[in-house]
Parts: sequence; structure tokens; C-alpha cells
Amino acid sequence: MASAPDTTSIPGYTIFREGDYDSVAATAMLPQGTPHPLDQLSIKEIPQVAKIVREYVSPKTVKFNCITLREPPKAEYAAFKAGKIPTPDRKGFAIIIIRETEQVAEVVVNLSKKKVELYKEIQNAMPTLTLEDLDVMERIARKDSRVIRACNDIGITDMSKVFLDAWAIGIDERWGFDRRLQQGLVYYRNSEFDNQYAHPLDFSVVADTEKEEILSVDVRLVNGERTAPPLQEHNYLPDFVGDKYNHDRLKPIDITQPEGVSFKVRGNELSWANFKMHIGFNYREGIVISDVRSHDMYEDRERTLFNRISVVEMVVPYGCPEKPHHKKHAFDVGEYGTGLMTNSLKLGCDCKGAIHYMDGVMSTGNGEAAVIKNAICIHEEDNGLLYKHTDYRDGTVISARDRKLIVSQIITAANYEYGFYHTFTLDGTYKLEMKLTGMLNTYCMHPTETAAPYGTQVAPDINAHNHQHIFSLRVDPEIDGVNNSVVQSDAVSADAAVGSPENPYGNAFLSKKTTLRTALEGAADYCYETQRAWDIVNPNRMNEIAKKPVGYKILNNNCPPLLAKPGSTVYNRAAFARKPLWVTPYKDYELFPAGDYVCQSTGEENHPFNSTILDWAKRNENIENTDIVCYIQFGLTHFPRTEDFPIMPAEPVSVMLRASNFHVKNPGLWVPPSAICVDTMSTNAFQSSCCAANAPTSSSRL
Amino acid sequence: MASAPDTTSIPGYTIFREGDYDSVAATAMLPQGTPHPLDQLSIKEIPQVAKIVREYVSPKTVKFNCITLREPPKAEYAAFKAGKIPTPDRKGFAIIIIRETEQVAEVVVNLSKKKVELYKEIQNAMPTLTLEDLDVMERIARKDSRVIRACNDIGITDMSKVFLDAWAIGIDERWGFDRRLQQGLVYYRNSEFDNQYAHPLDFSVVADTEKEEILSVDVRLVNGERTAPPLQEHNYLPDFVGDKYNHDRLKPIDITQPEGVSFKVRGNELSWANFKMHIGFNYREGIVISDVRSHDMYEDRERTLFNRISVVEMVVPYGCPEKPHHKKHAFDVGEYGTGLMTNSLKLGCDCKGAIHYMDGVMSTGNGEAAVIKNAICIHEEDNGLLYKHTDYRDGTVISARDRKLIVSQIITAANYEYGFYHTFTLDGTYKLEMKLTGMLNTYCMHPTETAAPYGTQVAPDINAHNHQHIFSLRVDPEIDGVNNSVVQSDAVSADAAVGSPENPYGNAFLSKKTTLRTALEGAADYCYETQRAWDIVNPNRMNEIAKKPVGYKILNNNCPPLLAKPGSTVYNRAAFARKPLWVTPYKDYELFPAGDYVCQSTGEENHPFNSTILDWAKRNENIENTDIVCYIQFGLTHFPRTEDFPIMPAEPVSVMLRASNFHVKNPGLWVPPSAICVDTMSTNAFQSSCCAANAPTSSSRL
Repeated sequence: MASAPDTTSIPGYTIFREGDYDSVAATAMLPQGTPHPLDQLSIKEIPQVAKIVREYVSPKTVKFNCITLREPPKAEYAAFKAGKIPTPDRKGFAIIIIRETEQVAEVVVNLSKKKVELYKEIQNAMPTLTLEDLDVMERIARKDSRVIRACNDIGITDMSKVFLDAWAIGIDERWGFDRRLQQGLVYYRNSEFDNQYAHPLDFSVVADTEKEEILSVDVRLVNGERTAPPLQEHNYLPDFVGDKYNHDRLKPIDITQPEGVSFKVRGNELSWANFKMHIGFNYREGIVISDVRSHDMYEDRERTLFNRISVVEMVVPYGCPEKPHHKKHAFDVGEYGTGLMTNSLKLGCDCKGAIHYMDGVMSTGNGEAAVIKNAICIHEEDNGLLYKHTDYRDGTVISARDRKLIVSQIITAANYEYGFYHTFTLDGTYKLEMKLTGMLNTYCMHPTETAAPYGTQVAPDINAHNHQHIFSLRVDPEIDGVNNSVVQSDAVSADAAVGSPENPYGNAFLSKKTTLRTALEGAADYCYETQRAWDIVNPNRMNEIAKKPVGYKILNNNCPPLLAKPGSTVYNRAAFARKPLWVTPYKDYELFPAGDYVCQSTGEENHPFNSTILDWAKRNENIENTDIVCYIQFGLTHFPRTEDFPIMPAEPVSVMLRASNFHVKNPGLWVPPSAICVDTMSTNAFQSSCCAANAPTSSSRL
Repeated sequence: MASAPDTTSIPGYTIFREGDYDSVAATAMLPQGTPHPLDQLSIKEIPQVAKIVREYVSPKTVKFNCITLREPPKAEYAAFKAGKIPTPDRKGFAIIIIRETEQVAEVVVNLSKKKVELYKEIQNAMPTLTLEDLDVMERIARKDSRVIRACNDIGITDMSKVFLDAWAIGIDERWGFDRRLQQGLVYYRNSEFDNQYAHPLDFSVVADTEKEEILSVDVRLVNGERTAPPLQEHNYLPDFVGDKYNHDRLKPIDITQPEGVSFKVRGNELSWANFKMHIGFNYREGIVISDVRSHDMYEDRERTLFNRISVVEMVVPYGCPEKPHHKKHAFDVGEYGTGLMTNSLKLGCDCKGAIHYMDGVMSTGNGEAAVIKNAICIHEEDNGLLYKHTDYRDGTVISARDRKLIVSQIITAANYEYGFYHTFTLDGTYKLEMKLTGMLNTYCMHPTETAAPYGTQVAPDINAHNHQHIFSLRVDPEIDGVNNSVVQSDAVSADAAVGSPENPYGNAFLSKKTTLRTALEGAADYCYETQRAWDIVNPNRMNEIAKKPVGYKILNNNCPPLLAKPGSTVYNRAAFARKPLWVTPYKDYELFPAGDYVCQSTGEENHPFNSTILDWAKRNENIENTDIVCYIQFGLTHFPRTEDFPIMPAEPVSVMLRASNFHVKNPGLWVPPSAICVDTMSTNAFQSSCCAANAPTSSSRL
């Protein structure tokens, strides 16, 4: 490397400035040759965008909220893919805050033409709080006299032991869009690595992010009294609990791929088994999987599946009505940015086996390139049986093993961690599995209080509040072509009465199909009683065997109803979470169902700069046999348990899209069986002529 | 081995007679020393039971339907465990059929005292159809003139190419309990290993199992015409599709445990991580997991969890109302016996990694010991993150990896295969995952017919009917003691209106708790809207932190409502499948919710020899703070897709019991972290001082 890159104090990021990257070879950071149109901006392109923007707004000075790839419009990308046009111009998208005035603007920079193509001022909307923004809180609060007094009053004098988790404000009627707000949840640590979530304090702090000013210290009095901080330690780091470890109990499991991995990576294009796709990454969505295609062995052609897959929003509403807890409803994607919060992954810690990592490239507030090394993990796992059948007559057995391809990232959202596991299997399935771990949000308890009914006492005087996690997976389907429909499937008993000629024994049941025709119909509820599922179909492509359109089925019975009441703050702000499914017609750059600007949002309808899924649905446009997008909500309701403290065992939740009459036959028949066995009715108890007897093609390792 | 054991023609079984087992050492087959009271009968004990029964009924002669362990009554076993009494007497339980008369009887034999303790004649009830029983069908049907004629009429003359899958009768009003019925579904094979499910024929056969007599050949005419057999081949065995295999695409994944497995097996007692349990096996339930305990690291004591876990029933009702399809509703546990249908497992085919196998010991009709070698697979798997947390301020990371212990078996139920994976993880969870694979049940189509709406055409002229799979997991809980209750938990918004003083922002929600008091209340429905779950609690043991009774939560949102209408045959026969949960007070030997005798059952209430869960629930006894049993139903509704043909990709479905305020803290904190990382805000993009820097205790392999 020509010179060591400079750094700021953003943990996990490495900052690159001009000259730093002359010899950097990592593809995602600095692509060789012409980048793929969906590649992240490189460490070289980020500062180029910054430079062009700076010149454009000069003499005003700017803080960059984000600099990211402006993906080409869908039609342009399609024309490029079809070979009709050359590589689209590289473009950057920036959200900027003009220093002093705090004016927010969106800027589109054409890097190929080195000019600003669009400059749009944004009113009454607040961009993401970056880690740099959130860093303000602890720095200023520790020095603030009101904060110091609030600590002193409960016996805490050493302010270096006071820690503030900075959160988006959620709601606070005392200020409007004239200030860029954040709130600080306050904790105490007894020593450097002590678990602060065991010592929550009874006040919270509101700050102005831009002016770096504490606006309010809100002490929660109970019966007019302060609550003493719970000081008992509850730790989980080895320095504290290492003597509890049992090193002999679990023997190592080694997972190796001596012949290497089965996937191929060229730049950010990934191919594995029958699948091909492009892996992107940005500050807000984190992993973006585009252009997912499948080679069909029966039709011997490449078939499109999904134009774009990403997690575009999530909300974690807490269920305690008492102030200040009503302000806790984190939108971790929109308020903080999944990309920005991404962990730099480590072999053995986060992933096992043979791993390919990709880096994430983003921007600092100064417009420098900020890299998260190993932001994305790509690896394979054995997935048990793909299929098996034994002929019971003669013991003839065939079985094959399934395999997973997993594209994953892990984020730290202050206390919580979320693992995102985008998973493909050999039967053609795509599954998003989330794993929730990390630390519960905790609060102190006054001796007169009980944790119930809105929380659980997870340790003496520590309350962990009820909450939900609702994720929004955006799937832009392209099921064998651009124009798709969604057909709702309900498993129902036949109407005919038991004993009638049509249903003499009463066993008749069928799948009732309802095509969702407009976006309001596309806002669909789950129905457990009918085991509702939704087929994304291409009505223009029939499966000639099944006489049904080719499709992929959305299987989602993990969609907790939003428990915040209609009319509540959360209900308004997180309208997307009201339904497990929304289907809208595709529009370029319409991505984020809680709005582009989630911080301080109110859920106001028809906001000129911040439309939401509710607005899109209420347009009530046609969604039948057209280019559509599906927003799939799933998650869980969490009533904390003592087992979740002091650190939570990972809890998985997932949603799945499964081929449904998409292929004419089992798409996994190209997978060589792990064994073909012909049992010969052995006359010896311990002899069996199995595994590979009849199997020149079997591998003992697969 | 002194002499080679003799065999009958039951594929997968090895038959032992006296003298065969002199040198057999396998523990499950022939225990050394005193067997554990819950150990299967050994290959030596099975013929001892047979001999005592034979002498008892002499001069009548018998066919043994089963010979299996008579487990000691719960109180007796508890006294033994407590050291109050010596090892209970070994007892065998046999169901016999007196030859000629066809009288069914239950016999309990005390092996320790070498005498019959109970002999009970059974009326109007039919025992399990064993593989030997089902073997009758094909043998007699191929020679039957009516069957031959039915084949000839559609152009099939070579009867060696005609195959009949023998099924329980389901329902057939033409005969009653005077005959032991079975039905044959007829297929054709073009060559020895040709897939018969591609050639279903248009008739079925009813046979008398004992008299070995064809009772009826039921041809299904469509518009008065026979349906030509679909003759197109659809194969999946390597001889047919081997040229489609792609051997280069998937590189091997090797999973090894160089230091051996982490579990210990002594006889049939298994210990792993914090868990201890006993593994049993019988002809009907297959795997039985008993006496599950957990060592609590915080209280430093062994705590009981589950007295007994097994899958006690399942039903697969098909949804096509046309005769003869109304007769297809397989109860694979009760009608055929999960144990009897168990595959002999093979390393590399069914399981990867370091495996411990156990054998299954059952009986032939002649009372000989029949052994399925490697019936049970015990192994570990890596399970991804157990927990992780990063302090975003300084990048301090801790993460540990989870591990699974899996006790599994795979059965072949004619066309279908079911994998049973009883899984324990380090957070204290028990999960039963089922994997469904094998072959769809298929039927031929007349040119005038469509498959819709009761099926899917999966290949030209082949219809695969809609069906459900509903499993019944019986959990006899012993949550920290014998007396337990079930508390229903519903996630609900607070009653207080938005804007009211109790709920100013409308976000309040809580878990509404309802204790199920009597067995009729214990017959509970799932509620998606409230994300219903059920806590099995010990009301006598409080979690003093949470102020809640210690418990385990049943998480089951995979419980498809039974689609057969009320009053239908299936609704009556499979009453257990009407509810996702039943809770009844414990009674010795009350195990099977569709009755002890499922073949030809009608679901008649208050049957003197064949009571069902409906009878037990209607007793409406107390289930609060007493010794209770939970029957948990789960499964899926399957509308076949072309992807499921010619062999189905495995489809998983699961149910879970999770610690819920059972432990005072995260029970996995004894697991050494895989890595403790302190990122030092590296100034070099490619240098990271992570993984083990601060970690004397970490293992790079865990």
C-alpha cells in the first residue's frame, strides 16, 4: 500500500483518502476494469462524488450523510443486460446536510460525466443517523452539567463510567424538524468491560445532533423519587465468567472443503449450483442481491427469478406505555442503516468452513471512503437430506444431500445484534433467516414497581420490556419474466356437505386462488385458518404439465400482528408493519416502506419528500400481470425471559420463497446421490452391502 | 457369532433365534448386566416372551403382532429412580392374534417371574399391520384372477410388473371387524427399478390379511371407461438419470470430530452438554426419549424436564372426495408402526460426521427377535451462533457457537419417507424437526379429467392429490418436578385507548395468561392474531427473579387445521388432529391419541378397548398442578407441485419447546466463546487484531 489510510474514530471502519488506495486490489473496494453497473461505489469513486458535490454547493460546506451507488433505472439496466446499450454511466447518490443551515438535500452525481445531475432540497424530513452522528451523544452528555447532576443525585460521580446508547428519537413533540434529534439511554459501568445493561439509569437525554447540544435531561421519577441504579454485576465476558467455562465438554467439529468451495465469484457476481446473482451492498440496506437467475436443466435455459432482494426496513416497538419508553421503537434499517452498523466478520467467530468475504464501502461525513472489511460472508453448508427413497420391497435406497449457499452479514444496533442469512438451497428455495442475539434493552426498577405486565424482571431491579421485531423483506420478483402477479392461496374444505354426492366422506379440500389485482388488495393479511400462502406467478408462462402459471410461493407464517394500537405513534410511523404482505407496481427508487427519511417521521400521509408504503398502496394501481414488488413482513414478539440475560441466546426467525410449479420436475436431480444402496437382505447381522455397491457415481464425502 | 441368524424375507430386518445371539455384544440388542428399566427388550428377551405366551395359550397357536417392553408404571419407575425399590421386574407386552379364530388379545409377561400377568381379549379393534402382514397383498393379488383380469383389460399381462403398495383400509363399509383388512394401491413397472409411481393403475384391491384372500377388486370407471395406464417413464435412479449428474459442481464438505464426539453413551443412557436422557425404541413409536434432565449451572443441581417424549400418531388425509381416494388417510404410527418401518441408516447417506448408532429390536410374527441395525442415529452438528455481542464503541466482540445434539430415525411408509430429528441445543431447547421426502402418492387420469381442484398434474396423466400431514408429539413434561400446569399466553394490546393516561402513545402490549384448568380447556386452538404459545410451568417452583413459575414454552405455529369437515370419516378417526394441543392428566399406558387400535377404527367414542384423546378430554379431569401430558399437533398442508416429482425434495416442519424463565440466566454461559475479539481500531485496512487476542480460552475449531 502506498501509504497507510487515515482513520477517524469510527470503530470497524477503515478510512481511505486519495493516495491511500493506489495499490489496493480488493475488487469490491476498487474494481479492476469496468465495474458491473450494480457494484458498490469503490473507495476511489466515493471521494470523487464528494468532490463534485463540494464544488457544486461551494461556498457552502457540507456534511455527507451518505454517498452510495445510484443504481441505474430498471429499464436502462435491462437494456444493458440485453446488450442493447453499453454500460450505463456510473452514478453516485448523496444525501447531504449543509453545515450551519442544516438544510438537507439529495444529490445525484454522474461520475462518468463528472457532474451533478440532480439536486433536490428536502423539507421536513431527517436522514439516517450515522455512527458518527450517534457518537455525538456520549461525548457531549458526559460533560453536560444537567447530566452530571442527574448522575450525582443517584450517587454516580465518575462520569467516565457513564455510557449513553444513542438512539433515534422515536417521537418527541417538544421539537420539530428544525432540529436533528437523538435520544441517549443511560447506563453505568463499574469497570471498563463491565456489562452496562446490568446498570440502566433512570433518565434519558435528548440532543441536537448538528448543534451538538443537550436539549433535555428527562428524569423518570417514581412516586416523586429517583430510582437507585442497580449495581449488581451481570457479566458474560471471559474476564468475569471464564472460570465457569467447561472446556472439555464440547469436542471440536471441523468443517473443511479440501477441494475448495463450490461457488464462483467474479467481481461481485456469484454463481453456485444452478443459481447466478449479483451481490451489492450499501449503507442502508446492507446486502442487496440482484439479478437472481436459475439455470433450468430441463429447459436448458437461464430463467430469471428475482430482480432484487434486500431487507428494506424493520421496526422494534416496545410495549411499555410509560414515558420515556414510548420513544423506543427502533427502525434499524431506516434510522441507522444496516450497512453502517455491519460487523467486520471473522473466521471461526461468525462463520465456519471455507469462506469468501466481501467488503462494504461507504462514506464518512467528510466524504472519504469508509470500508468495513469482511462485511459480507459467503459460504456453503451441508443441509441434510435433499431427498431419499427406499423401496421397502427390496431395500433399494437412493439419497442425496442438500447444500446451502449463505450470503450473510451481522449488524450491531447498539444493544441488539441481528444476523441476516440469505440462503439458497438445491431445491430452488430462497430463505431469509434472521438470528437475533446481543443484549436486551433494560431499565431500572423502583422498589415500588413490578416489571409485569409490560416487561420481565430479568435480574434484581432490572426490567426488560416486551417488544416486537418486524422485518420487511423487499422482493422485486422477476418470475421467468418481468410481468408477474400475486395469487393468494387459501386451503379450504370443499363447500359440499359431508354425505353429499360431491363429498360423500367429507374429506374434500382444495386451494382457493385469488389473484390480487390492485395495490390495496395487495395489502394482504395472513390467515392461519386457511394456511394462507401467496404465489408470485408469471401469468404469461404456463407450466404445461401442471396447467398452472409458473411461480414461487411466499411461505410466511412468522408475521406477528403489530400490537401497537391503530392510531398510535408506532402504528402511524410503521404502517408497513400493519400487513404481512404489500404488493405495489415497481417504480425506480421506490424502496423504503417507512419512507426514505425515517428519523423523526410521523407517518404523515402524502408527505412530499417522504412517501411510505401506505401512500403507494393507496394509489391503488394495477398489480396484475405487471412489474411488481412484494414487501414481506415477518418477525417475532418477544416477552423477555431470564434466559435472555445477561446475553441473549440467538433466536431464529425466517421466511421462505419456494419454487411452485416453476420447474417441470424436481430441480435437484442433477445432484449426484450421496449413496445408492441395494440391500441384499443380508444373512449376517453385521454385514450390509450398502453405500456405493451400485454407485460408480457416489462420493463418500458429499 | 455362534451361528448365522436365520432370516425371513423382511427387508432390513435381521432375525435372531435362540443360539444365534451367544456372541452378540451390541448393547441395545443384548444388554450386559442388568438392563435399564426403559431399555428395549433384547434379542434374548423377545423369544422368552414368545415362549411364555405360547405355553399360556397352548394348544391354540398364535401370531405375534408385537412383542415389546412393558414399561414400568410411572410411580414404580420413580421409586426405582429415587432408590426406594430395586430394579423393577422386566416385563414384555405382546399383542397376539390367535390363529384360525383371529381373536386379538393383549398379554403382559413378567420375564423376571416367567409368567403371564395379564391376558385381555380385545373386541372390535384391529392391531397394527406389520410389514409381514402388508407383504401378503402383493403376493396374493398377483395370482388373483380378478386382479389379473383388471390388468389384462388395460393391456398389462406380465403380472411380475404389477406392484401393490399395501395400505391400511382407512374405511370400507363392506366389512367389519370380522376381517383384518388392507387395501392395495396398484402400480406398474416397466423394468426392475422403474419408478412405479409414474404408472399408477385405475383400480385398488381389498384383502383379508389373515385369510390371505382378495375380497374385492375395485375398478374406478370414468364415464364407464377404464383409464389407460400412463406408461411414460419418470425415473430418478442413477441407471436412468446418471448422465444428468453434474459431478464437478458441488465440492465435498468434510465434517470431522478429530477428538471424538461430545456425548457419552452408557447402554442406552445418553449425556451431552447439560442434558441427560434415556433412548428407547419400540415397534410403534420408534424413538422414545425418556427421563430428560438438565444440569443447572446456576443452582448446581439436576433438574427434570420431560419424563417421556415420542411421536405417538400422525395422519395423512387426502383431499380428493372421489372413491377410492376417500380411503387414503394413513395413520403411519398407529396403523403401521414407526419402529417397524424404520430404515437401517448408513453413514454418508443419512448422516454426516461422527455418528453413534443404536439398533432397534422388535419381533416377527413367529416371536423371533427382529433387529434393525442402525435404527437410531445420534450425532452433533454445529448450529451457528449461540450468542454474539459487539460493543460498538470499541469493537469488543464476544461470540460463541451453538451445537445440536440430534437423535434421529428415518422411516419408509410405502411411498413416503419421514425423517424424525429430535434436537437439543445449548440454550436448553428441544425441537422436533420432521423432514418429508420420498414419493408422492399418484393416480392415473382419464383423458376427460383434470387434476384440479383436488390435485396437481405432476406429469402427463398423473394426478397427485392434495393432502395434509399432521403429527402428534406426545410430551410428558416434568418441569422441575412431577406436577405441572399449562398456561396459555396471548400477545394482546393493552385495553386502554390510545391517548388515555394508561396508554398515551398506544404502544402498550402484554402477554395475557390463562391457565388451562381441565382437559376440555386443555384442548386448545392456535391463535395467530395473538401469537399464542403455551407455557408448561411448575406452579410450585418460582423463578424468584422473574416472579414467574419456571417453565418451558411450546412454540407451535405449524399446526394446520384439519381440512376434513366435521362429521367426516377422517374427522372422526383422527380426532387428535382437530386441535394443536391437548392436555390430559397422566395415566399409565395411555399413549395413543387415535387409540391403541387404529386400523379400521371409526373414532367411536367410549370404545371399551380403544379409547382416544377425545374420550380422555371429555373426562374433563383436572390438569392444573398435577401430572399432565401434552399432545402437540403440527405438520403441513401439501398441494403437490411438479417439483415434487418424480421424487420430492425434503420439506421440513418443526415444533419447539424452549426454556421460559426456567433458568435464572442464559444457560449457555458455560460454553467457551469461539472468539473474544478486541478490535484496536486498526490503522491498516488489512490488519485486525482479532480472534483470540484476548482469548486464552478460545478454540479456533469450536
